[in-house]
Amino acid sequence: MAEEQHLSALERLIRYGSDDDVRRFYALLRPPELADLLERLNGEDRKRAFELMTAPLASDVLRVVEDPELEEILEDMPAERVAEIAHESMTDDAADMIGALDEEKRAETLEHLDGEDRREIEELLEYGEDTAGGLMQTELVHVREDCTVREAMEQVRAENEDEVGDIHIVYVVGADDRLLGTVSPADLITADPDVPLSSVQDRDPIVVPPTMDQEDLAELVREHDLAAVAVVDENRRLLGQVLIDDVVDVMEDEATEDIARMAGTDFEAVFDDSVRAAVRLRAPWLIPAFIGGLLVTFFLGSVESSLKEATILAVFLPVVLGMAGNIGTQTSAITVRNLALGRLDFKRVGRTILRQVFTGLAIGSMFGAALLLFVLVTRGDDVAVKKYAMTLALAIWTAMTVGATMGVTVPLLLNKLGFDPAIATSPFVQTANDVTGVGILIVIANALDLI
Amino acid sequence: MAEEQHLSALERLIRYGSDDDVRRFYALLRPPELADLLERLNGEDRKRAFELMTAPLASDVLRVVEDPELEEILEDMPAERVAEIAHESMTDDAADMIGALDEEKRAETLEHLDGEDRREIEELLEYGEDTAGGLMQTELVHVREDCTVREAMEQVRAENEDEVGDIHIVYVVGADDRLLGTVSPADLITADPDVPLSSVQDRDPIVVPPTMDQEDLAELVREHDLAAVAVVDENRRLLGQVLIDDVVDVMEDEATEDIARMAGTDFEAVFDDSVRAAVRLRAPWLIPAFIGGLLVTFFLGSVESSLKEATILAVFLPVVLGMAGNIGTQTSAITVRNLALGRLDFKRVGRTILRQVFTGLAIGSMFGAALLLFVLVTRGDDVAVKKYAMTLALAIWTAMTVGATMGVTVPLLLNKLGFDPAIATSPFVQTANDVTGVGILIVIANALDLI
Repeated sequence: MAEEQHLSALERLIRYGSDDDVRRFYALLRPPELADLLERLNGEDRKRAFELMTAPLASDVLRVVEDPELEEILEDMPAERVAEIAHESMTDDAADMIGALDEEKRAETLEHLDGEDRREIEELLEYGEDTAGGLMQTELVHVREDCTVREAMEQVRAENEDEVGDIHIVYVVGADDRLLGTVSPADLITADPDVPLSSVQDRDPIVVPPTMDQEDLAELVREHDLAAVAVVDENRRLLGQVLIDDVVDVMEDEATEDIARMAGTDFEAVFDDSVRAAVRLRAPWLIPAFIGGLLVTFFLGSVESSLKEATILAVFLPVVLGMAGNIGTQTSAITVRNLALGRLDFKRVGRTILRQVFTGLAIGSMFGAALLLFVLVTRGDDVAVKKYAMTLALAIWTAMTVGATMGVTVPLLLNKLGFDPAIATSPFVQTANDVTGVGILIVIANALDLI
Repeated sequence: MAEEQHLSALERLIRYGSDDDVRRFYALLRPPELADLLERLNGEDRKRAFELMTAPLASDVLRVVEDPELEEILEDMPAERVAEIAHESMTDDAADMIGALDEEKRAETLEHLDGEDRREIEELLEYGEDTAGGLMQTELVHVREDCTVREAMEQVRAENEDEVGDIHIVYVVGADDRLLGTVSPADLITADPDVPLSSVQDRDPIVVPPTMDQEDLAELVREHDLAAVAVVDENRRLLGQVLIDDVVDVMEDEATEDIARMAGTDFEAVFDDSVRAAVRLRAPWLIPAFIGGLLVTFFLGSVESSLKEATILAVFLPVVLGMAGNIGTQTSAITVRNLALGRLDFKRVGRTILRQVFTGLAIGSMFGAALLLFVLVTRGDDVAVKKYAMTLALAIWTAMTVGATMGVTVPLLLNKLGFDPAIATSPFVQTANDVTGVGILIVIANALDLI
């Protein structure tokens, strides 16, 4: 509610108020709250809103703006202004901003940055976007090992002049800049100031290479409750650090991506705002399902004349296909999520698959029995109906077992091959289920001489 | 790889080694790593493994073990031992442990705890499991406002004797215990030690009531990059704090729950390990879909005799239903995810719905045209086929539009009514799509005098 009032107040101030009025309004809100409002302004108002910000405020706001909007906002800004804001930002946020620009504007913006900023940002842009290197900031506080806790605190105080931002962890390094350990600011405060730093530091901190995938990194940070993690090169020299705040965003994005993929669309479609974008982002994902569906019509078409006699099979086909699809979706969602959480144990892949096959057999037999009963009760039990009922029961049982089996094997296989397993629950595989389901029904009906 | 070796080493040591061998092995691993191994031991070995731990180690391990396993492990432990471990744990972890026990054992365990521990844990158990109160720990470090930074650091050092664990944030309170502000340990270190504390503290920290839903809390922590958040009562008195580590776990669990629900199953099914449990957890979610499927057979059955003439409609029915289901799944996944991320703007619900309706109309018309063409090309273009082709094209267009519309309205409605919107993408709604799809096809075919 408050947000609605803030939004209309901001709109009014931008259109009719003085620049100072707008700036006074900014001072009332926290940057993330401001970002929420700005995302909802129209293009013109938003452009003006950013022009009225100081570079540090614009930096604080932009770091919480997410991708499709970030690109839009930066498009409206001159390269010089982007450079000014990037200069005020942590290197990881600056790299995200500059990485979101098109090639020409990116080069122009880098031109406007001073040598060190430029070099650091260019280095960060070299790393893959989804790696520890792509997430890390080069700003960090490090202290030398051979000192007391008191001296370490003094070093932290002196180093912080460089504006490191929130200090989650202090890194302890040797003379050759290699990482020897870590210590939290709270540990420094609570330790006796006169003991050697080496007696309070953690000598075996978790470190990661810059190439580590962000999903694995997130899992590590979550499991070990890390506030920040050091990124080091092969000689254990500190390259940068990834803060938990950034890992949290990764986790949300990875979950969003998995959810989108499972539903047969992609990450951007979750945030699409126009019908035009929705059509462009979503329609292509539906094409494999459509082609699969047409394939099913060929299968069914080949027995179309038999279907005239056996319309009951056509009537019950949707329930057979639906149930196979449903158990397949269940199984693949479970598999994909366990893969994402790092809970799937590859030494026991055989057991994991077998467990799902048996689950499919068990659940399939229950619904097979129910369908048998339903057909006999609603259609009478003469010899022909008995045969059809048996066919349908066998078909749903087999199709559900196959559905569960595909639901576990396809994501595992995709993962093994280096693809995103989440696409396995998409329309593509749902439709593969439809094709096999129809095939199974036809084969069984044939075997029983029904068609 | 290393994990496999560790696992077999631990198994060997537990079965054939001395107790000291096992304890020496424990010292080589971090608690979360140990937890990973323990989750994979069989019941007997695991029970023994916990018996050989000191209470503080068992506490560190148990706090990272997640729910289905936690219950199992605690079942094997005498109440006295659970109390001993709870005593070594932060109050939130202790409450989680004791909350996982059955009623009788819970009472027995609480008996074994001393008065203050018991009172605090009982209070935490009063709060809903999914609220800020249910997540918070009562341990925290607070300092009085009227002092210098140096004195504040001394207070922190003195207070930490109570073993608060990691100090993410120091809370500044007034004489009446009301929260006046917060300061991070790093801010204390980097400030001039002689300035008043009031000059460095954040005077307007974000606070939450104990009743706040954990999903909203997670969103707040993520958006504002908080390391910890204060939980206060209506008089702004500090009740406890929720650390970001715990919020991260909430985020993962909420995403897992949404993914499970969307796939038509529940949270526990993601972590089920036995076929028996899988059947029990998953089969019930398939029942609504099955009933919906049977409903479809009644609809189709009512026009069964007409289908003998119009088998082409039966042949193409799966593709119509499949595409309506697919666009419905896309839409509801997008809606559910935006709801979870707090991105859905209720003032503009009308616009959100309209956007999806138009998306359905647009995408539906594309696949309608494609289907029209496909039928005409594969089936020849005599008058009867033209009519069928038109019927099918109209049916897929309408069904996809209805699918997209239900995909957005049903989750919004469920959310408004206080239900979990994620169940809207489950087999239940997929099947609702099937029912309307068949209905649409029959109505259109009827209107065109085809059946």
